[in-house]
Amino acid sequence: MVSAGKTENRSVTEQRPTPVGRPSSRSRTPVADQTRKRRPRQQRRATIVDVARASGVSLSAASYALNGKPGVSEATRALVVRTAEQLGWVPSHTARALQGQRTRVVGLVFAVDGPAQRSLSDYMMRFVNGINTELAADDRAMLVTTVDSAESELEVYRSWASQRRVDGFVITNVRRDDARLDLVQKLEIPAVIAGDVRGHSPVPSVWTDDAAAMTMTLDHLLSKGHRRIVRFSDNPHYLHAEQRAAAFEDYLAEHGLRADGNLTAAPNRVETTAQLRVLLAEPDPPTALICDSADRACQTLLALKDLGRPVPEDLALVVWDDAPVCEITTPTLTAVARDAFDYGAAVARQLVAQLSGTAAGDCQGIVSELIVRESS
Amino acid sequence: MVSAGKTENRSVTEQRPTPVGRPSSRSRTPVADQTRKRRPRQQRRATIVDVARASGVSLSAASYALNGKPGVSEATRALVVRTAEQLGWVPSHTARALQGQRTRVVGLVFAVDGPAQRSLSDYMMRFVNGINTELAADDRAMLVTTVDSAESELEVYRSWASQRRVDGFVITNVRRDDARLDLVQKLEIPAVIAGDVRGHSPVPSVWTDDAAAMTMTLDHLLSKGHRRIVRFSDNPHYLHAEQRAAAFEDYLAEHGLRADGNLTAAPNRVETTAQLRVLLAEPDPPTALICDSADRACQTLLALKDLGRPVPEDLALVVWDDAPVCEITTPTLTAVARDAFDYGAAVARQLVAQLSGTAAGDCQGIVSELIVRESS
Repeated sequence: MVSAGKTENRSVTEQRPTPVGRPSSRSRTPVADQTRKRRPRQQRRATIVDVARASGVSLSAASYALNGKPGVSEATRALVVRTAEQLGWVPSHTARALQGQRTRVVGLVFAVDGPAQRSLSDYMMRFVNGINTELAADDRAMLVTTVDSAESELEVYRSWASQRRVDGFVITNVRRDDARLDLVQKLEIPAVIAGDVRGHSPVPSVWTDDAAAMTMTLDHLLSKGHRRIVRFSDNPHYLHAEQRAAAFEDYLAEHGLRADGNLTAAPNRVETTAQLRVLLAEPDPPTALICDSADRACQTLLALKDLGRPVPEDLALVVWDDAPVCEITTPTLTAVARDAFDYGAAVARQLVAQLSGTAAGDCQGIVSELIVRESS
Repeated sequence: MVSAGKTENRSVTEQRPTPVGRPSSRSRTPVADQTRKRRPRQQRRATIVDVARASGVSLSAASYALNGKPGVSEATRALVVRTAEQLGWVPSHTARALQGQRTRVVGLVFAVDGPAQRSLSDYMMRFVNGINTELAADDRAMLVTTVDSAESELEVYRSWASQRRVDGFVITNVRRDDARLDLVQKLEIPAVIAGDVRGHSPVPSVWTDDAAAMTMTLDHLLSKGHRRIVRFSDNPHYLHAEQRAAAFEDYLAEHGLRADGNLTAAPNRVETTAQLRVLLAEPDPPTALICDSADRACQTLLALKDLGRPVPEDLALVVWDDAPVCEITTPTLTAVARDAFDYGAAVARQLVAQLSGTAAGDCQGIVSELIVRESS
């Protein structure tokens, strides 16, 4: 249907072969006419913004419709597709590909708050390495930078897209109302979200089921007799942290337990010790702790050592995500294990599929499992 | 001198202002002459290869001379500089900069042997993060990929340089007779080596003094009474591993001790256990071990646990390089500490200095210190 729309909108000065079985009277336009109509040939190509405006729908709805994703009614989808055909809209990355202007480079922007982060987590490092390895196997490279503000981050997206430095973006650590998702649509550049935004964004995602992993973790702790559980979040402003917090609270409330245990992790060992001292002096102190990263879990383990509270005798400890260090600590640490390398590779494959013109929707990246060790 | 040379070689059709105090009769060439001489103006710019050939010296010698580095006699340097002036040679990156064709992107290629490496070492991750953070602060990005053969690695260098995807390269894990060093000179693209190649390469380097760090480590172990010491290397084919091995053997030989303790680390815990079992059954078994990475040290610690040989009572253990895990193990691990983030940042600054036209030579990146913990 789209190719038919393109034919009808094709500038009359073009001399491309008429498709077999589809004779076009317009290709026989007299020469004088061709000359007169030369100027429109240079006109700006219709963008998805034009399609949305002409259809009278939002940009998101237009994107959902044109990317074949759920989230719009069939009537709206039909309207948007018809409008796109009439305007001769072509996805800009497809257009670029036809022009042979692919860079074979994928963009990845790290955002840090405050001072330079001297190290990535083991999880993030494996994730990035999975992306890089998968891209390299397909003869593609990764363009990387770090920004310290949301505005700089958007500026990098704009600049790399407009200068055609990258063919697409991998978007990590999605926040609520993340401006990057609107931006990549406006820029009409392929992108993949690593995270669970199913039904909330027309940008395709590769997700993990954090709610299922939380249920698995809490099932385990309840089976061990724990009734007061506290969770320490590293980055509560990320969407995945919100989702974990919500799943945590829902599960405990359903089981008739206190569900107010979502806390933000202290930044270092000394402050973690202080935080735990207060918590453990409460009338109803926790008997189990869940940490959002192996780094924080190690810090928590050292803080409990400082407080003379043995793990798992006094407190159980579970980590998201598993890391080599979890097998080196004394005691070894129970962990939610998710293969971050494979997750990164899945995200890269999804983006490569988009770049290759294969329809791309949301897909699950990896499945979590719980590895029970000495700490619980 | 070079600018004088450029002036003399300047095409006569150019109408640039004559330098003060240096009137040039050539700028008064008649109009007819200008027309006749227009063609040579388009001719191929002289490269460093041309300069080397015309001077009758090797490419390396030409590069040493033109980059102001030691390694050539003053007579050779004078000859090369004079020849470069006569040919109107300009460093190609300077020429590109004058044309405003900087990409503000730096290339970094990871080489892996065999199957995809699922994780980088803590040291490498911090090092790369230091490069990236320093570049980002200067509004530059990093183009990254992974290759699985030396030939693919050279191909990436060629392709990124010829397509002007990067302004320069950071070269890590240098090997003996590393073909990348010749290649970046031939490509005339700025590069920095992270590693100690002082006096062996005209490509500027940011180095660490591994011999001094080895002396510090062995001084410590000898002061604790150890006389039979074994060292496990992760990647014996890297130049830095060779340098560490040589420093290790020299030191022990100087102290009249067995210096045949350079071994290659086994790939996993089971094989490490087998390797240690054989080693500890020898008539003169080691009482101290040095590991080349925190990962291997942890593996060694677990293997010694499997063998029922306590650290430090039965064997002392020292790690290159320090990592957070060294404070989490039981016992905590003595480590050679080198700030990998700062090292990466120093390497990036050196490359940025080159790209900004500041003369760049070899410089020390970071100084190592020994952090003595429970394991020794």
